[in-house]
Amino acid sequence: MLQTLAWTGSSLRLLDQTKLPTQTVYVDITDEKQMHDAIKRLVVRGAPAIAWRRRSGLPRRARCAGRGGPCRLQQVCQYLATARPTAVNLFWAIDRVKRGERRGRRKQPSSAFSPKHWRCWKKTIASAARSASNGAKLLARFQKGGAAINLLTHCNAGGLATVQYGTALAPVYIGKELGMKFHVYADETRPLLQGSRITAFELEHNGVPVTVICDNMAATVMQEGKVAAVIVGPIASRLTAMWPTKIGTLNVAILARHFGIPFYVAAPTSSIDMSLATGAQIPIEQRDPSEVSHGMGKQTAPPKWIFTTRPLTSRPRALVSAIITEKGVIEPPYEASLKRIMK
Amino acid sequence: MLQTLAWTGSSLRLLDQTKLPTQTVYVDITDEKQMHDAIKRLVVRGAPAIAWRRRSGLPRRARCAGRGGPCRLQQVCQYLATARPTAVNLFWAIDRVKRGERRGRRKQPSSAFSPKHWRCWKKTIASAARSASNGAKLLARFQKGGAAINLLTHCNAGGLATVQYGTALAPVYIGKELGMKFHVYADETRPLLQGSRITAFELEHNGVPVTVICDNMAATVMQEGKVAAVIVGPIASRLTAMWPTKIGTLNVAILARHFGIPFYVAAPTSSIDMSLATGAQIPIEQRDPSEVSHGMGKQTAPPKWIFTTRPLTSRPRALVSAIITEKGVIEPPYEASLKRIMK
Repeated sequence: MLQTLAWTGSSLRLLDQTKLPTQTVYVDITDEKQMHDAIKRLVVRGAPAIAWRRRSGLPRRARCAGRGGPCRLQQVCQYLATARPTAVNLFWAIDRVKRGERRGRRKQPSSAFSPKHWRCWKKTIASAARSASNGAKLLARFQKGGAAINLLTHCNAGGLATVQYGTALAPVYIGKELGMKFHVYADETRPLLQGSRITAFELEHNGVPVTVICDNMAATVMQEGKVAAVIVGPIASRLTAMWPTKIGTLNVAILARHFGIPFYVAAPTSSIDMSLATGAQIPIEQRDPSEVSHGMGKQTAPPKWIFTTRPLTSRPRALVSAIITEKGVIEPPYEASLKRIMK
Repeated sequence: MLQTLAWTGSSLRLLDQTKLPTQTVYVDITDEKQMHDAIKRLVVRGAPAIAWRRRSGLPRRARCAGRGGPCRLQQVCQYLATARPTAVNLFWAIDRVKRGERRGRRKQPSSAFSPKHWRCWKKTIASAARSASNGAKLLARFQKGGAAINLLTHCNAGGLATVQYGTALAPVYIGKELGMKFHVYADETRPLLQGSRITAFELEHNGVPVTVICDNMAATVMQEGKVAAVIVGPIASRLTAMWPTKIGTLNVAILARHFGIPFYVAAPTSSIDMSLATGAQIPIEQRDPSEVSHGMGKQTAPPKWIFTTRPLTSRPRALVSAIITEKGVIEPPYEASLKRIMK
């Protein structure tokens, strides 16, 4: 797998995902302004990945800059939290970092971060592997003889969005190791093309055949009987009500329902927010209109009156066939199942 | 309205639609190779418009080059027909040109083209106006007080795709002249962005408020209750069975059905092909994969394994609420209604 993150001793080194698939460029982050910019521009992206980058970068940042101690840390946390208001597990990570830092300061101020956080990192990788294995078992039902299982995915919820295996693509990678065959249709995912630039790049890099389609071709490949199942990444809120997720996911979910194709969500339990009754309470991220009007290096639309990233808001009972987590595959009715596993 | 076509005396002058919205550039066509290239690259596009460009350009071309008479014309027709195999009314136009030319040669060889064809041009404009008026009446049911009627459209079926008023956008232009208010969501329409580049440009040019959305945002604006009706351009085959049309139209039709939003097709009867039992007999256009992988000036996907323009194939009974033609608004059941009006 590609190395997406490293600590150089003086900076946090990140793979610049905006340059994929044509260039593999790393950027060195040395202060919180650069980190904020990297998160906002989606140099680093995917809710779980952002969380991890922050967990790695934050306490060191706070220590480097930190004459003010915890206050300084609070400021940095608050500042970074403004970079992407909808990534729930980012806040989860910040909270855990804050708590860790507070506890750490009481005991051993200068080395509190590293061992604790790398232990947690390893636990996350183990948890992702369990989720992937659950997903692979679920997908095995579509294996017919030696033919590849055709999946469709939206955006990027692979290793580049998370740690190591990813979420939506993890069952593919684990399944492949177990001898299963896959072929993936990757929605290109406008406006920033994470599907064509990152998912396709990553799958190809890992030896999984991939076909990039424009978002508007999904119905056609489904109608032609070419999609056994849809699998997408985390949904960042309580699944029993409304929830926000990547723009375009609602389109795909409705199309899958129309054609009777299972629609799976692979989501670590850290991305499920049980504290909110509905997603309506979650602030909706409105991104720069130029992502649409100048999305790919030249002007393609009048720059005014343009929507950008919008949330998905719908009810999972109707549209999600199952949720794949590290604690097992959850099927409807979700309210009860989620309460049980989130205990 | 923008001038999309002119005869300079020695060349056919076309608005280069690939340069919109940033440049208004005209190209002069002086032989059939240039015409073939212009149609293939979508310099000129929209099935009715291509037909008209050909009707204007073809006989003169044939005469200019034409020592071989009708044989030469046949060759040119066959050659141009390979530029875009799915545009039904393009073949309709070629046939009429051929017939006209044959009749013309018997009577007055050197001037057969112009009066006959410009008379037909005027008839087409009158027919488009009737269709537009029928559409405006249909849309009037969504007018509530002084608020704008919110429509969603896919691709471009406005004046730049046809003659003067267009098809899908014609009811908007006519309705506006009658005092109705509109706001249009324009799907950007990957891969070539006819929606953001051309529909948005054209609507803005004509004073109609427009919001460009990425194709994958359609479900979200529908779910937010922001779309009263969907209106799209011609469907190029028999409506009672399968038919091909612009990629992405099937997505929109299914989404509209899901949300209970009317889905209208505005189609001149010349675009309805009653001679085929199913659209499966129509050759499917496969376009250059680089339209997806290098769609907007830089590489955005690995260049292999990419779908490009794909047909829509579905049944209208389930997904089309009504068809707006110059002969009236046709509602289900279509088989009987179409047979009646196509007599």
